Amino acid sequence: MKLVRYGAMGHEKPGLIDKSGKLRDLSGQVADLAGEAFSPAGLAKLAALDPDGLPEVPGTPRLGSPVGGTPKFIAIGLNYADHAAEANMPIPAEPIVFMKAASSLCGPNDDVEKPRGSTKLDWEVELAIVIGTRAKYVSEADALNYVAGYAVCNDVSERAFQLERVGQWTKGKSHDTFGPLGPWLVTKDAVGDVHKLGMWLDVNGKRCQTGSTATMIFNVPKIVSYLSELMTLLPGDIITTGTPPGVGMGMKPPQFLNVGDVVTLGIEGLGEQKQTIVAV
Amino acid sequence: MKLVRYGAMGHEKPGLIDKSGKLRDLSGQVADLAGEAFSPAGLAKLAALDPDGLPEVPGTPRLGSPVGGTPKFIAIGLNYADHAAEANMPIPAEPIVFMKAASSLCGPNDDVEKPRGSTKLDWEVELAIVIGTRAKYVSEADALNYVAGYAVCNDVSERAFQLERVGQWTKGKSHDTFGPLGPWLVTKDAVGDVHKLGMWLDVNGKRCQTGSTATMIFNVPKIVSYLSELMTLLPGDIITTGTPPGVGMGMKPPQFLNVGDVVTLGIEGLGEQKQTIVAV
Repeated sequence: MKLVRYGAMGHEKPGLIDKSGKLRDLSGQVADLAGEAFSPAGLAKLAALDPDGLPEVPGTPRLGSPVGGTPKFIAIGLNYADHAAEANMPIPAEPIVFMKAASSLCGPNDDVEKPRGSTKLDWEVELAIVIGTRAKYVSEADALNYVAGYAVCNDVSERAFQLERVGQWTKGKSHDTFGPLGPWLVTKDAVGDVHKLGMWLDVNGKRCQTGSTATMIFNVPKIVSYLSELMTLLPGDIITTGTPPGVGMGMKPPQFLNVGDVVTLGIEGLGEQKQTIVAV
Repeated sequence: MKLVRYGAMGHEKPGLIDKSGKLRDLSGQVADLAGEAFSPAGLAKLAALDPDGLPEVPGTPRLGSPVGGTPKFIAIGLNYADHAAEANMPIPAEPIVFMKAASSLCGPNDDVEKPRGSTKLDWEVELAIVIGTRAKYVSEADALNYVAGYAVCNDVSERAFQLERVGQWTKGKSHDTFGPLGPWLVTKDAVGDVHKLGMWLDVNGKRCQTGSTATMIFNVPKIVSYLSELMTLLPGDIITTGTPPGVGMGMKPPQFLNVGDVVTLGIEGLGEQKQTIVAV
C-alpha cells in the first residue's frame, strides 16, 4: 500500500493511492495514520479494503507527512560507504545516532524555510524507516517485524548550526520544514528489497546526489536492532538512515541553498519530492 | 498550582495538589495535562477552580510525569558555572543542546532501569522548563510568556554510551526511565524567582550534588529564546537545563550506579524524587 495524509497543514486526513494512482479517502476507516494504525493489525485492516469502494478525493490536495503524531525523529549519520570515502572519513564502527525535532517534519512538497542567519543550508536524500510496533531489545533477525514501511526523507541540514556552533548536531537539524517526508508511506510488503533502491537529488534541475541503498553501511535490520538497545522505538517513530554522496558541503567549492532554489529528490518505488527554499 | 498526573503508567489521570497537600482529581475538568492544557487560557481555567470542590483521591497512587504527550525532550549541557569549573571545562560560548528521547520520561519515583551492558550509569539533578505556548523566534524579554511552569528532572545518563561510543550524546541519554520528571509541574506564578532555587541529590542517603539555579550560565529566558531560534517549541515540550556539581563521572575516583542503589533528589519548592536502580 501507498498511504498518504492529505489536506491543510495540521488538518491532514488519511488516504491511500490506488493502483491507478488515484487518491482515495480513508477517513471513514481510520482516524489518522498514526500510532497503532501502523501495527500489523492496523495495516492488515487497511489492506483488506477494496480501494474502489473508498471515496475518490478530487483535485490534487497538498500532501503532509504520511506519518501523524511522530513520537521520535531519529537519524543515522555517515551511513553510506561511498559517502564516507568521498568525505575521506573512516567507516564508523557503529551507527552514528542523532535526533531531529519531530516538529521539523513536513509534507514532501512543502516549502523549506531558510532559518534566520543561515549560511550553509544543505540537502540529504535518505531512506526513512517508519516503525510499526513498539521495539525494545529486538534482534536483527526479528527487527523487520517492527517496521511498518518506508518513505523518502530530505534530511535538511544547516551545516554552520550543525558543526560550527558549540555542542551537538541537533542544532542544525531541527528547524521547522527540515524533515520533508513522503509523498507516501510505502508498506514493507510493497517495497521489495529495501537494500537495492536507487536514489537521487537535484538542485535547480542539476543532479547532485546519485546513490543506492545498496551501499548503506548499517542496513535496516541492524539500525532497528541497534536503536532498540538504546531507546524504545514506538509506532510512528521515524528513522532516517543517512545519505549517499553529493551533499553541498562535500562539493569543491561547497555549495549551499538560497531562497528560491528548488530541490527535487526521489527513491525508486517510494516516490518523489519537490521543495522551494523560502525565507522565514 | 501544583499539577500532577497519577495512576498506572500509560493511564495517568490529571490532578492537583491542594494547599493542604491533598491530591484532587481533575478528570472532570481536563482530559489530560498535555498540549493546550498548558496554555495561559488552559492554566487560567484550572486556577479558577475551587480545589475543595474537586474529588479527593484516596490513598497514595503512583505519580507519572506531570506532562503528558511531550513532543520534545530537550536538554542543555554544561550549564552551571561551578560544574564547569569542577570539570575544568571552559564556559560554553552558547548553550550546548542535545535531545533525549521523549520515551525516556517517567514518573518521579519510578524505578530507573540500568540498560544491558551499562557500566557508567550516572545522575543529574536539573530544573526542567515546561513550555506552555508555541514559540518560534521569541526574544529573551518575551520568553517567559511561553513557559507554563517548572519541575524537577533527573537527567539520567549512561556515560559510556554517551561519550565513549561513536557519535552523539543522545545514545546515553534516551533509555526508558532516563527522565524521571516531577512530582509536580509547578506553574510559573507559584515558583517565585526560578533563578534562586536550591537543589540537591543523594545516592543511598549520601549527599552528592548541592547547588542552586543561581549559578546557571544561561538562564531560563535565554534558553527558551535561544532554542526558539533553532526549532519551534510546542506546548508540553520539556527543556531540562543542566546540572550543578557532583555527578558520578566527576568524582575521584568516578562513582556510578548499580542495581539496588537509591537516588533521591529535589529542588526548593518543586518537590522531591526517589528512584531505585533495577536491571532490565
